[in-house]
Amino acid sequence: MIIDCHGHYTTEPAPLFEFRRRQVAAIDDPAKSPSPASLKISDDEIRESLEGAQLKFQRERGTNLTIFSPRASGMAHHIGNAETSLVWSRICNDLIHRVCNLYPKNFIGVCQLPQSPGVAPANCIGELERCVSELGFVGCNLNPDPSGGNWNSPPLTDRWWYPLYEKMVELDVPAMVHVSASCNPNFHTTGAHYINADTTAFMQFLTSDLFKDFPTLKFIIPHGGGAVPYHWGRYRGLAQDMKRPPLKELLLKNVYFDTCVYHLPGIELLTKVIPADNILFASEMVGAVKGIDPETGNYFDDTKRYIDAVSSLSAADKQKIFEGNARKVYSRLGAKLARL
Amino acid sequence: MIIDCHGHYTTEPAPLFEFRRRQVAAIDDPAKSPSPASLKISDDEIRESLEGAQLKFQRERGTNLTIFSPRASGMAHHIGNAETSLVWSRICNDLIHRVCNLYPKNFIGVCQLPQSPGVAPANCIGELERCVSELGFVGCNLNPDPSGGNWNSPPLTDRWWYPLYEKMVELDVPAMVHVSASCNPNFHTTGAHYINADTTAFMQFLTSDLFKDFPTLKFIIPHGGGAVPYHWGRYRGLAQDMKRPPLKELLLKNVYFDTCVYHLPGIELLTKVIPADNILFASEMVGAVKGIDPETGNYFDDTKRYIDAVSSLSAADKQKIFEGNARKVYSRLGAKLARL
Repeated sequence: MIIDCHGHYTTEPAPLFEFRRRQVAAIDDPAKSPSPASLKISDDEIRESLEGAQLKFQRERGTNLTIFSPRASGMAHHIGNAETSLVWSRICNDLIHRVCNLYPKNFIGVCQLPQSPGVAPANCIGELERCVSELGFVGCNLNPDPSGGNWNSPPLTDRWWYPLYEKMVELDVPAMVHVSASCNPNFHTTGAHYINADTTAFMQFLTSDLFKDFPTLKFIIPHGGGAVPYHWGRYRGLAQDMKRPPLKELLLKNVYFDTCVYHLPGIELLTKVIPADNILFASEMVGAVKGIDPETGNYFDDTKRYIDAVSSLSAADKQKIFEGNARKVYSRLGAKLARL
Repeated sequence: MIIDCHGHYTTEPAPLFEFRRRQVAAIDDPAKSPSPASLKISDDEIRESLEGAQLKFQRERGTNLTIFSPRASGMAHHIGNAETSLVWSRICNDLIHRVCNLYPKNFIGVCQLPQSPGVAPANCIGELERCVSELGFVGCNLNPDPSGGNWNSPPLTDRWWYPLYEKMVELDVPAMVHVSASCNPNFHTTGAHYINADTTAFMQFLTSDLFKDFPTLKFIIPHGGGAVPYHWGRYRGLAQDMKRPPLKELLLKNVYFDTCVYHLPGIELLTKVIPADNILFASEMVGAVKGIDPETGNYFDDTKRYIDAVSSLSAADKQKIFEGNARKVYSRLGAKLARL
């Protein structure tokens, strides 16, 4: 079984965009906010949005299950206030739930959280609990910068975040560290902001004792860990200079990397420097890069091909990367799959 | 000849810190500012600061010349105002000039610019011209975020920066894109802010037509290009999706990467995906990582060893990386070396 731990619903039916347009237009005049009940999307519209995209690629590429969440750049926690974010998150999560009900063998849900700049993350506990306990989701996406590129929240290692972590631990669900759209003209969303956030979060973890306080808390750093594996020597050296424990001991029981790296040399590096126990297969399809690489004739984001091509990985390691680690990190996954 | 294009004066004599302390303490009461003439550092103090560090490492590692600039995290453009920054930059640049005069075969200068948040980069032209024309420097360090982690300046591709670029082109000097200390608790200075800035600048270049406006403008992106080579497939794919030209055509006549990547797998990746014509040897010593890698027994930042160990690079490619490209990018270097 091949589990892709990082897929977003980036082919949403048009009525969702129209609802969001009306919601954002009404931010300064809440009386004009559209009612969630006014959003009508049929099952056929959902099927159609997936059949020619995510499902087609699953079939063509030979992957089985995608851990699926709302479009990351669409979370846009910087827009409006906590109420805006809660309404929008519930709608997006409910839509993921419908996808998972229509295709239970193909998709399992991960939720967007109703974060909002300056609002304590404890505010997200209700929606996390609803998504896990009622909708059967297995994790969440956690935005380390709800401002969208201004980076004015406390670091992920600050006690500001602890109430949410307590709930994650209680529910036994991991978070993928994932920012949303950048509204800072310095940061291109998918080319800079996403990758920077990955690198930033890792370094926050490296310099803190967060995992002493939460020994079972688990994070997935997407996009191959940002810059981290490429600079693994730098991070090992920084930790050593700071008299921190070796990275393996300090972080690797809690921090995992996905394989959203869109060329073979990058995947070779990732699998060379990061233990196979800490790598989860992912493609982010349909996502940041949609085209075909003229150098290979294959989709840039067909990351399974790269992993297949890494000859130094044993079959056992590939099994961990493709399936075993996802079952370990998303610990609720096993029970759900057993019921299928 | 082996030219290290990225060294900072990180072993400054103590009186420099004391001057800076007094300067910063007087920011709200400029009448109390120390006079630059009050800073006394002897030639012997300078020699002593280098003999056991940069010079020792040059000898031990077999490198010859370091392109040398003030401590990057010390630039701290976010402290004080433009006048604070100008006084501090002149002092730091003058000290580099003294180093280069004491050891003309070992060090050639690159300047810090007197940037200040919200102040137009045109403000830096005078100091750049002084350093190049009077002090014989061959380039500058350009901070894309003088705020120190708030990222509230226009992107490097904005016309805001153009007057400085016009002067760089006129003087025929490149800039290394290099942020300074982070005062944003989200960003660890050397573990996140530096690397993020590298990635951010590259993506700004990718999405702009800056190099149509300045065909001969040259930038070095340090720290191995941040996350860029590791995600080279992502960047090729993003450019293609945006209907931009191939990266080689779009950027690689103007953008170069250094080799400050502190482990062999990272250098292998860098030299595999980035053309040898675009890589400049650098170690950043004595810099971000000072320790010895227990896995190799050598200094993490002894990057020459990694390049020596890459068997897929031809002797001609290694010559470019170690010397040829530095002479090409820092075009004033050749004339200076010929006079030695």
